[in-house]
Amino acid sequence: MSEYPLQTHTLTANTIRGLAMDAVQRANSGHPGLPLGMADVAVVLWSQFLTHNPADPEWINRDRFFLSAGHGSMLLYSLLHLSGYDLPLEDLQNFRQWGSRTPGHPEIHLTPGVETTTGPLGQGLSNAVGSAIAERWLAARVNRPEFPLIDHHTYVIASDGDLMEGISHEACSLAGHLGLGRLIVLYDDNGITIDGKTDLSFSEDVLKRFDAYGWHTSHADGHDPEAVRAAIAAALAETERPSIIACRTTIGFGSPNKANTAKAHGEPLGVDEVRLTKEKLGLPAEEFYVAAEAREFLGAGGRAGAQKHAAWATLWEEYSQQYPDGAELFRLMLAGEADVSLDLAELFDPAKSIATRVASGVVLNAIAPQVPALLGGSADLTPSNKTDLKGEGDLRRGDFSGRYIRYGIREHAMGGIMNGMALHGGVRPYGGTFLVFSDYMRPSIRLAAIMEAAAIYVFTHDSIGVGEDGPTHQPVEHLMALRAIPNLTVIRPADPTETAAAWLAALENKKGPTALALTRQNLPNLNGTIGDALRGGYVLADADDPQVILIATGSEVQLALGARDILAREGIAARVVSLPSFELFQAQPEEYRESVLPRGIRARVSVEAGVTEGWERFVGLDGASVGINRFGASAPYEVVFRELGITAEAVAEAARAVLARLR
Amino acid sequence: MSEYPLQTHTLTANTIRGLAMDAVQRANSGHPGLPLGMADVAVVLWSQFLTHNPADPEWINRDRFFLSAGHGSMLLYSLLHLSGYDLPLEDLQNFRQWGSRTPGHPEIHLTPGVETTTGPLGQGLSNAVGSAIAERWLAARVNRPEFPLIDHHTYVIASDGDLMEGISHEACSLAGHLGLGRLIVLYDDNGITIDGKTDLSFSEDVLKRFDAYGWHTSHADGHDPEAVRAAIAAALAETERPSIIACRTTIGFGSPNKANTAKAHGEPLGVDEVRLTKEKLGLPAEEFYVAAEAREFLGAGGRAGAQKHAAWATLWEEYSQQYPDGAELFRLMLAGEADVSLDLAELFDPAKSIATRVASGVVLNAIAPQVPALLGGSADLTPSNKTDLKGEGDLRRGDFSGRYIRYGIREHAMGGIMNGMALHGGVRPYGGTFLVFSDYMRPSIRLAAIMEAAAIYVFTHDSIGVGEDGPTHQPVEHLMALRAIPNLTVIRPADPTETAAAWLAALENKKGPTALALTRQNLPNLNGTIGDALRGGYVLADADDPQVILIATGSEVQLALGARDILAREGIAARVVSLPSFELFQAQPEEYRESVLPRGIRARVSVEAGVTEGWERFVGLDGASVGINRFGASAPYEVVFRELGITAEAVAEAARAVLARLR
Repeated sequence: MSEYPLQTHTLTANTIRGLAMDAVQRANSGHPGLPLGMADVAVVLWSQFLTHNPADPEWINRDRFFLSAGHGSMLLYSLLHLSGYDLPLEDLQNFRQWGSRTPGHPEIHLTPGVETTTGPLGQGLSNAVGSAIAERWLAARVNRPEFPLIDHHTYVIASDGDLMEGISHEACSLAGHLGLGRLIVLYDDNGITIDGKTDLSFSEDVLKRFDAYGWHTSHADGHDPEAVRAAIAAALAETERPSIIACRTTIGFGSPNKANTAKAHGEPLGVDEVRLTKEKLGLPAEEFYVAAEAREFLGAGGRAGAQKHAAWATLWEEYSQQYPDGAELFRLMLAGEADVSLDLAELFDPAKSIATRVASGVVLNAIAPQVPALLGGSADLTPSNKTDLKGEGDLRRGDFSGRYIRYGIREHAMGGIMNGMALHGGVRPYGGTFLVFSDYMRPSIRLAAIMEAAAIYVFTHDSIGVGEDGPTHQPVEHLMALRAIPNLTVIRPADPTETAAAWLAALENKKGPTALALTRQNLPNLNGTIGDALRGGYVLADADDPQVILIATGSEVQLALGARDILAREGIAARVVSLPSFELFQAQPEEYRESVLPRGIRARVSVEAGVTEGWERFVGLDGASVGINRFGASAPYEVVFRELGITAEAVAEAARAVLARLR
Repeated sequence: MSEYPLQTHTLTANTIRGLAMDAVQRANSGHPGLPLGMADVAVVLWSQFLTHNPADPEWINRDRFFLSAGHGSMLLYSLLHLSGYDLPLEDLQNFRQWGSRTPGHPEIHLTPGVETTTGPLGQGLSNAVGSAIAERWLAARVNRPEFPLIDHHTYVIASDGDLMEGISHEACSLAGHLGLGRLIVLYDDNGITIDGKTDLSFSEDVLKRFDAYGWHTSHADGHDPEAVRAAIAAALAETERPSIIACRTTIGFGSPNKANTAKAHGEPLGVDEVRLTKEKLGLPAEEFYVAAEAREFLGAGGRAGAQKHAAWATLWEEYSQQYPDGAELFRLMLAGEADVSLDLAELFDPAKSIATRVASGVVLNAIAPQVPALLGGSADLTPSNKTDLKGEGDLRRGDFSGRYIRYGIREHAMGGIMNGMALHGGVRPYGGTFLVFSDYMRPSIRLAAIMEAAAIYVFTHDSIGVGEDGPTHQPVEHLMALRAIPNLTVIRPADPTETAAAWLAALENKKGPTALALTRQNLPNLNGTIGDALRGGYVLADADDPQVILIATGSEVQLALGARDILAREGIAARVVSLPSFELFQAQPEEYRESVLPRGIRARVSVEAGVTEGWERFVGLDGASVGINRFGASAPYEVVFRELGITAEAVAEAARAVLARLR
């Protein structure tokens, strides 16, 4: 390696420190500790190693940089600004203000060069594992001899908190298993958390732990640029295992009175301490001072990346000519377009009862050949979730030619990894587990919704229909709790047709995650029009001048139909509305919704094998909800439905009671 | 050690195998693999080491046994039956049937001797860490020289799945940090998961990982009773570190065609295979056969435990005489009684605005001296959650005299550990994090609710009031998602008085967990009657003949009051209802609820800085909800409230619109 310009380095790192201190001070809010502590490490990475093009932050083969410790956002904003991204100094000066591009924690889509939304700890690290998987998977699909279209690295800065969170265990254990040699984690080993010194609660040997996961591990003094540079170079040379470099740093580096204390972590240093710190670092007192050499030093990294991008564009041109099929595949995968056609008559026998999870497996296998970006998996419930793709192999260490990820019993990592794959581009991830275990991955689902990441969750065993496995495995609150997450589309189909519609809707939803809730138990095939189901809610069975509307989802739609028959025999006219998706229905025009649920008909009964909270949106104060406001029980599922009162007769009885009350 | 009766051992283990196979086969549902695989290990533990009294499963100083891999429930039921618990063979024959005491996964309170409800993986292991902490903490409080009232061990059977889950990392890292020498984990190292061989997804060196956590680690052939016995003895001899013994076992041991395959894991072996397995094991074909020697062998373990219990009772008598204060403290802690008195006038200045998190800290510190069982903590947000107890120390390796747990950035483990402490007896755990991170611990919260574990969650930073930290840290869906969990009481107080009521309600709730949602930002002191707040909802400000009801929680109550003033100036009479807890309010008599929210007044507006889903329960189809059906934003909190339309004027405007619509 050539000689490293130590003086320029230090000026650059200190410029970042100054910007971070000033931004936090002006906002009177934020986290100076990490930017001050990790500035040296970050400057080495961004000036010497990171391949990126500030003029085109979307270049598919750029190296990815994830700031998992998102509270250190000013480090990232400073790096982006100095490297030449479209993030002028004014943005840094508006740190944490309404409408600025420099929010408290980095947010993808808002700020050029920000690769993911971080803050909740452990998530960015898991996203990075997803990015590293996506990289190898795309490489296996599109690279050709002499044409390494995809061969980038994924870098992460992770904190003590990232590594204490359980998701870090799940994701990093899997990363070691898969041998993700292009993943490099820079661990900010600063010995401080909010409560104080890490030894209050944290005394594990982190590197031994990662060694146990099969990682390449090393140490470096995080304030010795040459040592950091050598460690990153060694990590790059290691191609079989992911690497973690424990960078021993001082939180709040340079601050005479707050460095190496929890006080440096999450609050402004104070005007006086900022001044003292700048003095100590040899920075001018000027607010938001930028040394020209700093812009030059990091800008050179960006320009080198732009040159590589240009060379890549040439490679891509040659590749397109030599391998037009590969190029077409690549374009399709990147666009994520899916012009899917399904022949339901061919896929399903209308006379046969099947579980919606089984229907989902059938639909998925019909879709997959038409959507090459689809990359599946399950958190060790493949036979139950019906998520496997016939004829496709698993992703394995050294062989990413398959199309299925064995996530292991790691729901949370699956969520975080799916986010990373979705953000990478070229991949439409789907992953399965039981609906009840959506709780285990909920923080990642929320982030997918925030980030508009188009992940597809295959949540099977969606009610007390689980039966014998009992209350720990029977979701009751999960549908409503998932519906509460903004920008998450939840779909609970009632039969194969609605299941097909659910998958089509999921593929069409590119601005957020979609959760499919599917039954374990068999259901009758109810209807034959896919278009209605795509509207989220529709009149499945009507009556002339209906007196009461029965609204249901999934496995309970058949109960609403049964109740309608019971009521009809009593001379009560009932309409049945199938409502597989609150979100899709609410996105319909008012007029359509009114046609399904006319304001004038107040006698309404909902039925869903889950909590009734939230159903009042449709049944109001005058209606009734048949549901389960307790936990389930272990028994054959038909018994559980009967004992918990989720029956057609119970729906009919609720309808009678509502009509009597309104009379 | 004396010679181990190998023949009796084998007959006992095989009796368990027979019971497990038969019960699963008769239920036509269940998991034979683990009972067959771990029968040898369990028999060694229960016959030679476990101190327990089948006649009194509640004895406080019994050893605890946690089957973290709850799907292996038939192993536990067989052990309980053979050891002499009140669990007759008929119960085993009713495995997984409605109303039986042998549900699919073990459920505490239902079955004598079952220490926790397991199934969701990683939870039982974390409960065990909680049990081991509770044991040391109680020991530090009540033991006296010569009087080791509390000195039991905690044993766990954990599976590959338990150790793959992230919560296992969090809990076990903390267990190593705290040096929980009385915790012994028997790891069922069988190399198989649902998807197939563990090497599909799992290749970490588990023991090296636990070594990195500071654990004592060892290997044993899980089908060599002498080796298992020696390993457990060695683990008992190690008092400074928790121990994990990797027991190499064969899943479905004895099954000629399914052993060592995923097929043995989670479905009946089949009638023929059961027959073949019994033949191979030398068992009679008889269904639910019990060898008398097996009952004798495990019964002897129980009888030895009963003798120890009797000796302990004598010790306790002597202790009570010699240390009456200690005995009184112990009784108080065990009863969990809390006759708490609070002088609000002394605690709070009615003229001063404070955040409810600050009010919570004040109340908590007033309560703590009166409730000796309270044991606090935070997931590294102590200064933010205001959960510290003044003058009390932290629990530390070798010194458990403190009263506060530094959980580290491990929300999920905190949840699981709190459950284990609550189940242990003698401890009322509370723990803090940000409301948004309740998602990280949601599976444990759900289990607390299922198990009726009286944990108290201090969730601060409960809305967009978080401000600059932005959408990743601003909960919007969490209140409603928590309210969806059955048997969880959620309380969001509006001021210091309501905060005090919230704490009193939490202490009174011994049949389930309570979540307190508290503000980061300051709020005015609104009212002075604690009794109203304890009812969950009440009329805070009324009007003669109100035309509209404004309903609010927490920090938005002041907005409802502001809207009432605005409307009053326009001649519109509005009632303001403060509704800190849906659950407490819904537990009130119908008559009371009707007096607060009269059915006749349909003009209703709710205001809460979160999703509106669920508010329709109170405002119906005719009312309106002022809320946030999107993610938040990074900016000073006053700006975020204004920009997202959570203002008094918005509430007033919604009221006008509702009134106009109803006119």
